[in-house]
Amino acid sequence: MQKITILIHCKDQKSIIASVTNYIASIDGNIIYLDQHVDAIENVFFMRLECEFNKQKWDLEAMKNDFKTHLADPLNMTWDMYQQENKPKMALFVSKYDHCLYDILGRYCAGELELEIPLIISNHEDLKPVAERFNIPFFHIPFTKENKETGELEHLDILKKFEVNFIVLARYMQIITPKVIEQYKNKIINIHHSFLPAFPGAKPYHSAFERGVKIIGATSHYVTEGLDEGPIIEQDISRVAHNHSIEDFIMKGRDLERMVLARAIKLHSERKIMVYNNKTVVFS
Amino acid sequence: MQKITILIHCKDQKSIIASVTNYIASIDGNIIYLDQHVDAIENVFFMRLECEFNKQKWDLEAMKNDFKTHLADPLNMTWDMYQQENKPKMALFVSKYDHCLYDILGRYCAGELELEIPLIISNHEDLKPVAERFNIPFFHIPFTKENKETGELEHLDILKKFEVNFIVLARYMQIITPKVIEQYKNKIINIHHSFLPAFPGAKPYHSAFERGVKIIGATSHYVTEGLDEGPIIEQDISRVAHNHSIEDFIMKGRDLERMVLARAIKLHSERKIMVYNNKTVVFS
Amino acid sequence: MQKITILIHCKDQKSIIASVTNYIASIDGNIIYLDQHVDAIENVFFMRLECEFNKQKWDLEAMKNDFKTHLADPLNMTWDMYQQENKPKMALFVSKYDHCLYDILGRYCAGELELEIPLIISNHEDLKPVAERFNIPFFHIPFTKENKETGELEHLDILKKFEVNFIVLARYMQIITPKVIEQYKNKIINIHHSFLPAFPGAKPYHSAFERGVKIIGATSHYVTEGLDEGPIIEQDISRVAHNHSIEDFIMKGRDLERMVLARAIKLHSERKIMVYNNKTVVFS
Amino acid sequence: MQKITILIHCKDQKSIIASVTNYIASIDGNIIYLDQHVDAIENVFFMRLECEFNKQKWDLEAMKNDFKTHLADPLNMTWDMYQQENKPKMALFVSKYDHCLYDILGRYCAGELELEIPLIISNHEDLKPVAERFNIPFFHIPFTKENKETGELEHLDILKKFEVNFIVLARYMQIITPKVIEQYKNKIINIHHSFLPAFPGAKPYHSAFERGVKIIGATSHYVTEGLDEGPIIEQDISRVAHNHSIEDFIMKGRDLERMVLARAIKLHSERKIMVYNNKTVVFS
Repeated sequence: MQKITILIHCKDQKSIIASVTNYIASIDGNIIYLDQHVDAIENVFFMRLECEFNKQKWDLEAMKNDFKTHLADPLNMTWDMYQQENKPKMALFVSKYDHCLYDILGRYCAGELELEIPLIISNHEDLKPVAERFNIPFFHIPFTKENKETGELEHLDILKKFEVNFIVLARYMQIITPKVIEQYKNKIINIHHSFLPAFPGAKPYHSAFERGVKIIGATSHYVTEGLDEGPIIEQDISRVAHNHSIEDFIMKGRDLERMVLARAIKLHSERKIMVYNNKTVVFS
Repeated sequence: MQKITILIHCKDQKSIIASVTNYIASIDGNIIYLDQHVDAIENVFFMRLECEFNKQKWDLEAMKNDFKTHLADPLNMTWDMYQQENKPKMALFVSKYDHCLYDILGRYCAGELELEIPLIISNHEDLKPVAERFNIPFFHIPFTKENKETGELEHLDILKKFEVNFIVLARYMQIITPKVIEQYKNKIINIHHSFLPAFPGAKPYHSAFERGVKIIGATSHYVTEGLDEGPIIEQDISRVAHNHSIEDFIMKGRDLERMVLARAIKLHSERKIMVYNNKTVVFS
Repeated sequence: MQKITILIHCKDQKSIIASVTNYIASIDGNIIYLDQHVDAIENVFFMRLECEFNKQKWDLEAMKNDFKTHLADPLNMTWDMYQQENKPKMALFVSKYDHCLYDILGRYCAGELELEIPLIISNHEDLKPVAERFNIPFFHIPFTKENKETGELEHLDILKKFEVNFIVLARYMQIITPKVIEQYKNKIINIHHSFLPAFPGAKPYHSAFERGVKIIGATSHYVTEGLDEGPIIEQDISRVAHNHSIEDFIMKGRDLERMVLARAIKLHSERKIMVYNNKTVVFS
Repeated sequence: MQKITILIHCKDQKSIIASVTNYIASIDGNIIYLDQHVDAIENVFFMRLECEFNKQKWDLEAMKNDFKTHLADPLNMTWDMYQQENKPKMALFVSKYDHCLYDILGRYCAGELELEIPLIISNHEDLKPVAERFNIPFFHIPFTKENKETGELEHLDILKKFEVNFIVLARYMQIITPKVIEQYKNKIINIHHSFLPAFPGAKPYHSAFERGVKIIGATSHYVTEGLDEGPIIEQDISRVAHNHSIEDFIMKGRDLERMVLARAIKLHSERKIMVYNNKTVVFS
């Protein structure tokens, strides 16, 4: 048996669930997970399915064709279909901060992530030893005002060469160029160290300290052209008090950044997120 | 249009979702909410549906008969069907503590609860003025070792007379008798002031203080014959520290008790809970 | 014995704690609680003390004079001193929302708040029956663009007449005028239904829904002339998901508003808050 | 200047804070942090100080002698004094689970922990490659029923040789022998994967699943002879629901274990914990 994950969204319509489940039954699939959501304001239907199919009977391409012809096209669906054994390839972009990098690589080695990490890209050489420690290819691609264009070309080149499916900015600290964003739409995950939309941009812990908040946060989101304005995937918070310094905020924030980014990576790699209208539907 | 809530559980079986959604489509119903759960270990299927039906075409009894004949009996389902406009009647049992009582009555008057409170029962007279303040009939039914049997009879009599659908023990502090439990199976909600299964029984805050825990909790659960062993509906916690006294634990606990009981009442009255194997399935 | 609470702030200086504790010992006081905080950036020292004194020996005025002469003036302190048995008087301002009002009055009647509520003021008559239910004088003072000036005069008049110590805006929905703010500086508590500084101003739940956040919040703060910009007292949050509607946000938010406002009221009435530089020091 | 941390506990007595702060002032120390706690039931006073002293004037031994003679002995104090630049040495005990190990080593390399890790000890060879990856000496000391006694001797030998100050059991899964516990009293930290005192002993996630709890937890505590009964340092929780399998509990639990153990390590290494009556005082 093979396990297949299917993501669907389309205009909401009568008997849509029956249509899908009847179709799966008709091709001898067994639904082992189904979750759906209706956006009642936009009138859009979202569904995530996990099904089991006979491996001999169906290969992925044949199934995609059949699904398209008999279900997706007639109902005007936007959809994706994945074999679960086919793990996505994730590129890590880092700069100088190492705490998220260590956390992700630790989880990766501990077998918690259903993905592959073929490479790490950085605009600095500082974290090369960490990559080496975990035996992951490290590419130093400088990225300054002057060499943005060559940097972008190198990025695209390497991402293509390694067949990267999605990108994670683990405190990368650089603006991603529009061309890369366009080619990896809803496939670049950033961790921002504030509770968005509060404190976008630089130095959010300093701003939070200045404002005297009692709770700080972190936000993982897909990267769009608007700075820190992309679809939010996950957020979490930590309490702070008057006796915490900015350094305490930063230290507590590191734990938030680690957790909130790790959860986003896990959700994305398990194909549990759909994006619509700059918001995410996150299936459990 | 009328809104109908349907709860189903049965042995898991192929195409079960298609069977249900096809049936609803066949009688011109429109599914506006569907959630399901499969207990993979026990091989049991759970589903909650909210549907809209033409009010002229179907009354509740006719629909129940049709559902039973054409779907539930053939698939050997256990099920319930409710008209949403038909609010359940809740009896409140209290003793001397008033904080949960004030919280529930405040929410009731503020229009947050889809239920009716026809009466309050207590083994003491202390909270009669609170009942009067909110214009709810108050019955003082003493309940001591000596008069348990007459107390139980009075309870059953009044509950029947007021057509009570479910009972909430808002810090009632007395053991409910087996006969009442049997007649209101999975319909009596208790709030226990600890994070069960830690600290069952009396004086849990004192035990938690003694043990030096860093987090206290509260648990709402259905009442079974085993003390504090019934199916858990909801839990929540609050941080404590070395500088909190037992009195601080109790004060913080009051907020937990209020919240955790209020959420259980809301979930039960909106028919979002199913019980199986001494555990709850709680739909969102 | 009488219990006295002392709040102090002054420039940080060597041996400041020794100076204070020596002074208390010198007048036969017994310190039963001491907490202090140093703002290392601003070089300011904050301290909160609870002490016991012989009731025969000291009355409050005499003690204040002695404290001023022998400790506060020499060390250039800003300070306050309260008898704990002397409960502050709180005015409640409400409009049409009743959930915070019910929660506060419930806690008040349940004996959880060390304060008195001599009156409720509203710009509408809707909540008069709630006030009557709890036997608290209710004053209807219309407050529109046209009659702001007379409204303000009436407010100040009644607040003075009832010797009000602090004001709580329990979803009052009106802007407080500068003259009232000036007379009750750091003594007016508002509850804002967002996680400030995100979503200030009107309709924060709608904005949060629109942005697709995964966590909503509420913030209690002292009122200053800048809208929702005053010193933050307390914040809390609640998780939301794609399947929550704006109505769900609002319903979950009601619980946040209740809790976050109730905690601020408790902290303020127990004299645990000091304000400095638009931030709060909140002692435990 | 040198930074000194002082921990004190003694019988509560009048003017105790003044005595301490006067003493520090008398030897030209500057208090930069002071927190104290009075256990009103046991009548015990606890204090934690951070002070700055002239490095030329005082070495640690001289200061200890002076402190003992002029303050600690007269007031019958139990106390400890540490130079902050003198980092404690931590031994890591592991077995086969690697997630806590990766997390601790990642934090260590990222510079978040004020300690040294001179060695890792394990009863299995599985995690040797992880130790090598981080260049930390790894000792394989088998520990079964048959060789407990030689194992214990080897443990004590190596711990002494490396001058270990405290031990962390990062999911070590073996019972520590009484002799080791005695020599490292309140210096062995364990992480238990449940919300103690619920579910002590083996397989707590399975027990939690079976009971149908809505929240799972993890607990870090000092090891005593009673299994999972030692003083609790830190706890945290995570929500679970009916649709989570035991595997989901375990995966969510890994994050709890990481966080709760990391916080305990940080608190212990920064000398913020005092133990009394099987409970901890944890200074912030």
